[in-house]
Amino acid sequence: MRTQPTNPLRIGLRQERVVSPQCLIIFGASGDLTHRKLIPALFELFKQRRLPSEFAILGCARRPWTDEEFREKMAFALESKVKQSTKEWEQFSANLFYEPVDLQRSEDVLKLSTRLEEIDRLKATHGNRTFYLSVAPKFYAMACKSLAGVGLLSDPKRNRIVIEKPFGRDYASAQTLNQIVQSCALESQIFRIDHYLGKETVQNILVLRFANTIFEPIWNRNYISNIQITSAETVGVEDRAGFYESAGALRDMVQNHLTQMLAITAMEPPGHFDPEAIRNEKAKVLQAAHLANEKEPWKCCVRGQYSQGGNKNSPILGYRQEPGVDPNSTTETYVAMKLFVDNWRWQGVPFYVRTGKRLAKRTSEVVLTFREAPVHLFDAAGGSPTSNQLVLRIQPNEGAEFRFEVKSPGSGMRSRPVEMEFSYDESFGEPSDEGYVRLLADVMLGDPTLFTRSDEVEAAWRLYTPLLELIEDSPWQLPVYQYEARTWGPAESDALLAKDQLLWRRP
Amino acid sequence: MRTQPTNPLRIGLRQERVVSPQCLIIFGASGDLTHRKLIPALFELFKQRRLPSEFAILGCARRPWTDEEFREKMAFALESKVKQSTKEWEQFSANLFYEPVDLQRSEDVLKLSTRLEEIDRLKATHGNRTFYLSVAPKFYAMACKSLAGVGLLSDPKRNRIVIEKPFGRDYASAQTLNQIVQSCALESQIFRIDHYLGKETVQNILVLRFANTIFEPIWNRNYISNIQITSAETVGVEDRAGFYESAGALRDMVQNHLTQMLAITAMEPPGHFDPEAIRNEKAKVLQAAHLANEKEPWKCCVRGQYSQGGNKNSPILGYRQEPGVDPNSTTETYVAMKLFVDNWRWQGVPFYVRTGKRLAKRTSEVVLTFREAPVHLFDAAGGSPTSNQLVLRIQPNEGAEFRFEVKSPGSGMRSRPVEMEFSYDESFGEPSDEGYVRLLADVMLGDPTLFTRSDEVEAAWRLYTPLLELIEDSPWQLPVYQYEARTWGPAESDALLAKDQLLWRRP
Repeated sequence: MRTQPTNPLRIGLRQERVVSPQCLIIFGASGDLTHRKLIPALFELFKQRRLPSEFAILGCARRPWTDEEFREKMAFALESKVKQSTKEWEQFSANLFYEPVDLQRSEDVLKLSTRLEEIDRLKATHGNRTFYLSVAPKFYAMACKSLAGVGLLSDPKRNRIVIEKPFGRDYASAQTLNQIVQSCALESQIFRIDHYLGKETVQNILVLRFANTIFEPIWNRNYISNIQITSAETVGVEDRAGFYESAGALRDMVQNHLTQMLAITAMEPPGHFDPEAIRNEKAKVLQAAHLANEKEPWKCCVRGQYSQGGNKNSPILGYRQEPGVDPNSTTETYVAMKLFVDNWRWQGVPFYVRTGKRLAKRTSEVVLTFREAPVHLFDAAGGSPTSNQLVLRIQPNEGAEFRFEVKSPGSGMRSRPVEMEFSYDESFGEPSDEGYVRLLADVMLGDPTLFTRSDEVEAAWRLYTPLLELIEDSPWQLPVYQYEARTWGPAESDALLAKDQLLWRRP
Repeated sequence: MRTQPTNPLRIGLRQERVVSPQCLIIFGASGDLTHRKLIPALFELFKQRRLPSEFAILGCARRPWTDEEFREKMAFALESKVKQSTKEWEQFSANLFYEPVDLQRSEDVLKLSTRLEEIDRLKATHGNRTFYLSVAPKFYAMACKSLAGVGLLSDPKRNRIVIEKPFGRDYASAQTLNQIVQSCALESQIFRIDHYLGKETVQNILVLRFANTIFEPIWNRNYISNIQITSAETVGVEDRAGFYESAGALRDMVQNHLTQMLAITAMEPPGHFDPEAIRNEKAKVLQAAHLANEKEPWKCCVRGQYSQGGNKNSPILGYRQEPGVDPNSTTETYVAMKLFVDNWRWQGVPFYVRTGKRLAKRTSEVVLTFREAPVHLFDAAGGSPTSNQLVLRIQPNEGAEFRFEVKSPGSGMRSRPVEMEFSYDESFGEPSDEGYVRLLADVMLGDPTLFTRSDEVEAAWRLYTPLLELIEDSPWQLPVYQYEARTWGPAESDALLAKDQLLWRRP
């Protein structure tokens, strides 16, 4: 009720929660994720003084590296970051250890166990252990069983396990994996990571919705005409062809990232800000979601694959020409679909979801388009007024923008659309943390709010089951349309919205 | 429903309505308003080619000027504007005429009538005449009677009369004046001018409310906690002491400008955009408005008067030291009050209205503060989240801003307030027309939408009757508190809001 005379950005306490002494064990320490994301994020946490002094990182992989070699390889990979803060890197890397481990070999697992006890003594980490599975998905089940087999997951308060995406490759396999993992550890020990949930702006959707009063009353079918969720990449398959060929955009992006964005956008307000309360609401909304046409999924889904593009000076390979890709591949690099959420809030409001590689622009956003005014009192520029639109920009240029009509200057009473904008960078000056910084800190704090619970992951797979089955059983019903690289996907995707008299937003 | 791919500002047709051939007669042509506002606005319309070629302006006052003298005086007063467009001024000023007229003398009125017929022949203005009463308010009734007496108002389609503020000085005198004016002309011929309604941003409140869908659902007592309407001036009484001493801020600003802003902010959506539909709704909302405490108005109203201020280098006179002001004057130069609008939309929502001279900053704005979120899910910077606030900036820097909470970057889930802004200047590039340009064009077009109808003006006076009577009958109950020039008014005004646990917004 009170008017605030000032606007104290960046003032105030940072009441950081404190990470307890612990050892983070990374399986797959020789892989990309470790040096590209995990170690940089941990180094960032270290520099922000958010790690305790009783802290260790143990890299594990099959390669016979020594601690020193591991440190050197990490320093090499983080070159520019290390150069900027040589002294801090020295301090940080003293906590880096390495142990050659093949989790399929029981003697290795025992050796690991011994090494961890050693580290506990050395670094006073008290048996608090977070196991990070940065390994191929086919090893998740085995890894959990191996760790559980030697009692490394037996203390629900001290032992946690982090599982990367993809968690399963369909509803059945996700269920099976959940059963196995849950036979090895309690749900409270299991952190299924989705790095999209680490993004400030994804979290901001929650704050925007529930720390303000003006959005909630209009955040429903009475006022919203449709919602578009986009995650567009400009990159191609890069060096992930091996994985990507067997996954495709639906498994790689939609089932996890885009579905999480949908859940956060569409969920009911939780009773409190508490991990279970949030995850209950997310699970609920996913359970109410379904493809617009589950019986004939080809009517509500479009798949695409990028073909050659660019220009003479910088040609871009088509997907089928990429190294490691089957020249006849029918893996989709683009997918667009229409969903509904059948609950009181959203019944009848289409959710359009799209993602693709080699699109015209890199962007992730949630776009809420409101219904038209019931009466057009004023003339509008261009014939009819635009609908109000709220754009939540996830990346790049994180922020939000709101489009509305104002009076066009001059005589008469015509309206024209304008945009108001809020940008994280402009308002807060600092670039926000990489998603992994946030998520690694949360894992080590034992805060599961931003991690996907078993029922969520299963509901998300269930949602796409009709599509996955169709692709499996009769792929000709869901052809992979070619689209030129650096465009906005196949024409058929525009047609999907045109059927509803709509257009995709061009970010 | 349709997403607009582009945002075509400033594109599109300007479907200007066309002013018919006519003569504009200004009574009080030797006064300030004529050369400060009216002639510049008419010159502007001329330059924008919004006047027909069959057009004349006849200045009337008691001074025995010739046409040529009138043209020279106007050219002198408009010096810089004339210099910028010498050629256009030559063309424009050829349409300027002058006739010495004392409306109290019947022979003068007859002479005027003859002159107008002459102009009709000369300029082909077809007897279309707009009479602009830029004279002292005490002459309004007489002027109307004189004009009607010789039949100059007898053609409802061709003859219009424009009456400046103040229209009456209380409810009874406004009623009497309305009766007289309406005995001389139909309501459709009468244009009571309030230059605030000429401001783009006042008109924009209508567009903002009724061309968008997201505001209307929350524009009511369920979501709005309070509304503040401010018009703050930095200037003092200037050379208007003679008038001001008998008026004060309540009559000079509140009854007209601020009450019109309130009406436009609070009115129901009209069925169509049509002058009578709009004015019906404005009249309705004013009829539902009342002082928060009509029986004890001193509990909901604060009056003030500026005292000396500034500093050694640029001292500012107190009101009582101004030339022409009674050294014991109890005329208020500041007034603040609390009102309610008792209808389904607004019952229980306080409207705080304030205006003053010699305040800290020149600004006019409407501030809507929304209720707090029912549940505080997140920690907030500064303890508790700010309420959402929508600020409609009338002047200067016309536009709108919206305050809301977003996630504070970094760990945790704290919220912080940020602002989104829309500025007319930034979006449209052109400074908008002066209010008089718009209003003069509308009068000549016969469009009464932005003019105050008789029932509105009476309802506005009725609203403040308890205050006016109190000031008349027992002024000691509503003392005039001194406030230092260049501050935000008397402390008692802050206390008025503090009683409701609120603060005035500091613009």
